[in-house]
Amino acid sequence: MEQEVKRAETQFDIHPLLAERWSPRSFSDKEVSSDKLAQLFEAARWAPSSSNVQPWRFFVARKGEEHFEDFLKGLMEGNQVWAKYAPVICVNVVRRQFEHREGENHYARHDLGLAMGNLSVQATALGLHLHQMAGIKKQYLQELLDLKEEDYAVVSAFVVGYLDLSRSDELPEKHAKGEEQPRQRKALRDILFGAKMSDAPKWLNDSP
Amino acid sequence: MEQEVKRAETQFDIHPLLAERWSPRSFSDKEVSSDKLAQLFEAARWAPSSSNVQPWRFFVARKGEEHFEDFLKGLMEGNQVWAKYAPVICVNVVRRQFEHREGENHYARHDLGLAMGNLSVQATALGLHLHQMAGIKKQYLQELLDLKEEDYAVVSAFVVGYLDLSRSDELPEKHAKGEEQPRQRKALRDILFGAKMSDAPKWLNDSP
Repeated sequence: MEQEVKRAETQFDIHPLLAERWSPRSFSDKEVSSDKLAQLFEAARWAPSSSNVQPWRFFVARKGEEHFEDFLKGLMEGNQVWAKYAPVICVNVVRRQFEHREGENHYARHDLGLAMGNLSVQATALGLHLHQMAGIKKQYLQELLDLKEEDYAVVSAFVVGYLDLSRSDELPEKHAKGEEQPRQRKALRDILFGAKMSDAPKWLNDSP
Repeated sequence: MEQEVKRAETQFDIHPLLAERWSPRSFSDKEVSSDKLAQLFEAARWAPSSSNVQPWRFFVARKGEEHFEDFLKGLMEGNQVWAKYAPVICVNVVRRQFEHREGENHYARHDLGLAMGNLSVQATALGLHLHQMAGIKKQYLQELLDLKEEDYAVVSAFVVGYLDLSRSDELPEKHAKGEEQPRQRKALRDILFGAKMSDAPKWLNDSP
């Protein structure tokens, strides 16, 4: 199995930290050091956010800590089967309300995405892999974390650790195959437009 | 005026592409080449998304193109005063519904954030600066772009270009001052937790 198959087949050059990122399900037992973990969340901390409100909140469990198994149960069963191998689970939460004025922050989820973008780049820079998940049990996690629904919303989770592709044999067949398949994306022309969705940007040379 | 003041004062080391990013309001007239623009959206294209649905859509106007002034009018007046100097405006849209099954994609805005995280890192790698905005006229832009509300939502916008701090003299005073102020963030202990919000992570050494 070659890891190169997962390098994005880009139409235009992008930074290696972006091209080499992918979301595996085969994680090594190797633990992530406290320093590296701190660097991940430090990276998230410096993301931009609407009015700089920084709505992101992260709850972290390392394997061996008492709440690791509780967090693992907060993932959908289909995710638990592979996520259990990873040494760290994080539950991502947003503060729904503004802190300094009334009203709901409609950019909270968007800005969590920005923070996770930063965290993800830092992970790649440290030789780590992330796998983010929307497939979680939100109500269970909301109660487990003791969060009031009017103030905070559980949005997503991720595991982080070191890749160990030899472990893909232990995965359900469809996931083991997934580790060998090239990454797929829509074409640039399907997501990038000029004045209207019917107009391709005039400046885009589709065959550089 | 020193640009170094804007480098994040991090508690733990993070990658320079993350530490050196910030959102200026002083942009040079220098245009962004077609190749560099394409690289920005190529980077966004390779972000992860829930079920790989890639809900992000980007509408781009370069200065000189007919729709640039129309896009500019879609920003709140307070943003127009400085955004008009930038050579490129992009309006960020999400597809609200899934394409291959019924139902609303509740991760669309989150995943746009992930794509913008990628795009932002690529911009920094190319020597460009972004300024993202939530302060936009959504209804006006929705109609301008001819988007059906049930299918697509206008979420945010950004300008991108080259930094020119000598131009900060042309900005309103509060914005000119902003270009000289260090970036501020919550402390790590305010966004990072163990099993509950009342628990700091046991592994986090707050004074490394």
